[in-house]
Amino acid sequence: MTAPATARRTVRVDLGDRSYDILIGPGLIPAAGREIASRLKGRKIAVITDAHVAPLYLDDFMAALKAEGIEAVSLVLPAGEKTKSFEHLISVCDSVLAARIERNDAVVALGGGVIGDLTGFAAGIARRGSRFIQVPTSLLAQVDSSVGGKTGINSSHGKNLIGVFHQPDLVLADTDVLDTLSPREFRAGYAEVAKYGLIDKPDFFAWLEKNWRAVFAGGEARIEAIATSCQAKADVVAADERENGQRALLNLGHTFGHALEAATHYDSARLVHGEGVSIGMVLAHQFSARMNLASPDDGKRVEAHLREVGLPTAMDQIPGGLPPAEVLMDAIAQDKKVKGGKLTFILTRGVGQSFVADDVPQSEVVAFLKEKLPK
Amino acid sequence: MTAPATARRTVRVDLGDRSYDILIGPGLIPAAGREIASRLKGRKIAVITDAHVAPLYLDDFMAALKAEGIEAVSLVLPAGEKTKSFEHLISVCDSVLAARIERNDAVVALGGGVIGDLTGFAAGIARRGSRFIQVPTSLLAQVDSSVGGKTGINSSHGKNLIGVFHQPDLVLADTDVLDTLSPREFRAGYAEVAKYGLIDKPDFFAWLEKNWRAVFAGGEARIEAIATSCQAKADVVAADERENGQRALLNLGHTFGHALEAATHYDSARLVHGEGVSIGMVLAHQFSARMNLASPDDGKRVEAHLREVGLPTAMDQIPGGLPPAEVLMDAIAQDKKVKGGKLTFILTRGVGQSFVADDVPQSEVVAFLKEKLPK
Ligand SMILES: NC(=O)c1ccc[n+]([C@@H]2O[C@H](COP(=O)([O-])OP(=O)(O)OC[C@H]3O[C@@H](n4cnc5c(N)ncnc54)[C@H](O)[C@@H]3O)[C@@H](O)[C@H]2O)c1
Ligand SMILES: NC(=O)c1ccc[n+]([C@@H]2O[C@H](COP(=O)([O-])OP(=O)(O)OC[C@H]3O[C@@H](n4cnc5c(N)ncnc54)[C@H](O)[C@@H]3O)[C@@H](O)[C@H]2O)c1
Ligand SMILES: [Zn+2]
Ligand SMILES: [Zn+2]
Repeated sequence: MTAPATARRTVRVDLGDRSYDILIGPGLIPAAGREIASRLKGRKIAVITDAHVAPLYLDDFMAALKAEGIEAVSLVLPAGEKTKSFEHLISVCDSVLAARIERNDAVVALGGGVIGDLTGFAAGIARRGSRFIQVPTSLLAQVDSSVGGKTGINSSHGKNLIGVFHQPDLVLADTDVLDTLSPREFRAGYAEVAKYGLIDKPDFFAWLEKNWRAVFAGGEARIEAIATSCQAKADVVAADERENGQRALLNLGHTFGHALEAATHYDSARLVHGEGVSIGMVLAHQFSARMNLASPDDGKRVEAHLREVGLPTAMDQIPGGLPPAEVLMDAIAQDKKVKGGKLTFILTRGVGQSFVADDVPQSEVVAFLKEKLPK
Repeated sequence: MTAPATARRTVRVDLGDRSYDILIGPGLIPAAGREIASRLKGRKIAVITDAHVAPLYLDDFMAALKAEGIEAVSLVLPAGEKTKSFEHLISVCDSVLAARIERNDAVVALGGGVIGDLTGFAAGIARRGSRFIQVPTSLLAQVDSSVGGKTGINSSHGKNLIGVFHQPDLVLADTDVLDTLSPREFRAGYAEVAKYGLIDKPDFFAWLEKNWRAVFAGGEARIEAIATSCQAKADVVAADERENGQRALLNLGHTFGHALEAATHYDSARLVHGEGVSIGMVLAHQFSARMNLASPDDGKRVEAHLREVGLPTAMDQIPGGLPPAEVLMDAIAQDKKVKGGKLTFILTRGVGQSFVADDVPQSEVVAFLKEKLPK
């Protein structure tokens, strides 16, 4: 059964001859075969998914492909951030090559951001670039990771340090599937939704403050929030595909967030990406206030909303303790936003007024972290 | 000591804001520090090389960098085609990240095509793309693999099946270092030099027939042959960077050649890449004659020249035996030049008249191979 087409939204990512559509709405997994078949020249697909998503949606997805005469193979990987590794990259590449996916065929990521990042990377390097379709199943993946072409895996030196830019040819965001997402993961994805408001959409942030319960519940408000988020990301990506400038704004909260993820060894029992981003966004607002850029009230407003939603907003909410400020600083310095030893940070002048600062003194960051770390 | 600048040639690869120079001539390793320092904003370099090249040139190269205030680390890998593997890709990425190579710093490949392909791939994925400098030390790498941005590793499913396009920022081809190359490797590289004549430069092929001894001996004729080859490759790459059309001509002899390399398990004791290309080019001419596209005399002329130089020209010269035609065909079909199941081949109407044929019947190829395979 397919939902009425009226509920469906389309966001276009404008990248010249590599432009693509993001379809957002209910019933897109059952409709996937038709949407893919109408766009793809080839008739072969390799589907990569994880052990949580497979029992819920893989059969439906494969059946939808089969109904349109598309031959598909699938590979199920362990769920979790640790799957973004060379080890699993090798197995995805191997499946894709074994399935003889050729230039007009495609590789599909059916899952959250972990599966999307890993599979996109494999698609980007198999035969030096194969077609790639994102079927994001987590809120985070639907509003963020599936759009924009950043792919990659983690290294012992830091998160996402190995990868390529490889744009998908299509994104199918089935909003129904978010109903099986754990509340914790839904909240984590919501942190990225709120992020778009905090970057440069104060009205959207205010709308979220009023309507977040409806977004969590499903239906029109959810579709609206996801479409607004995708549009925001699509605009930034179209303007700056390779992150030479404004795309860096999307990293609001992420410099601190990634350091916290590294410090907790990517252990999702302690911290998932969106939670790190939530704490990171609060820290970014507080640090901006400390630098006399923003009013402390903005930080308090952000903190209040994220706390109301149920997200962590301070480092002392991370179970298991954290390393000292200097070690966190070291993780920050190894992050991607470093040029010639200077620190690039996303700071803010208030809700919806973020900007790229590329001369943040390391000593200020360390002093700030010392203040904020649990004693 | 540096050779007079008059002997040095520069070929520019025209790719808009990713254009770069190939410097060709004697004394470029001792001069590397200066050439790099004048072009690079950063002051950190990771040098990747192999166990044959390291004892010969690594100290000189590191000293040249140091003299210009460039901080460098090095990694020495085993020599040979098997080094183009995920295992070694992981160690190169790890060295690059451990050295904290940032956006303005660079990764250097000091070696033959194996080191160049592997290191270029690592540079292409470390931090989603790092600066990359090729210092090719084999003839093959100087005239072919170091130019054009194709990078990659091998898979059990076939050669170069995993990789990215990642253009270097500079190529330094020191023609002196070819004096330590084994005669066999020099000949193998020469196959690629001859290839440019066979593709579309009949005059260059005729010049090589007369002057090949001088090219092997060194001096002006060698520099001339390398510069002509680099210019030929630069022209093709500038016209078709991603191999959507004419760049495929560079694969003359390679479809057969790669199948032979796969069939001999990339065992360089039996066959090196250029030898496979030499046999492959002769086969491509013979197959074209069989298809009534070219005169058999062209095939004989090509065979005569390559044999005179000392290259293998027929499959029965490969020690250790070959699998049956069907198995070779299978390796061909898994090669990159396959679209929707149809075979793309580079065929020829005669010396210097190659073209892309994308509808070659598989049955003809199998029948031809059966004829040519040693009984
Ligand atoms: N490429 C980018 O631009 C980008 C942007 C942001 C984040 N990321 C990356 O995304 C990753 C985080 O993504 P994520 O939060 O989706 O993580 P995830 O892929 O691990 O998914 C979270 C959990 O939810 C499960 N899950 C997914 N969909 C489900 C569903 N419909 N029902 C039930 N369970 C489901 C997964 O199995 C997993 O256990 C991180 O690795 C982060 O670095 C990438
Ligand atoms: N990227 C491309 O466009 C492209 C094009 C053609 C070939 N290739 C690849 O290039 C590889 C073959 O390159 P190759 O023939 O240079 O192989 P190679 O790198 O293995 O070098 C051949 C041998 O010569 C040694 N050597 C290199 N320079 C030397 C020197 N100056 N003195 C003494 N010994 C030296 C090496 O250690 C090695 O043992 C293959 O993997 C092939 O697929 C890539
Ligand atoms: Zn994020
Ligand atoms: Zn070659």
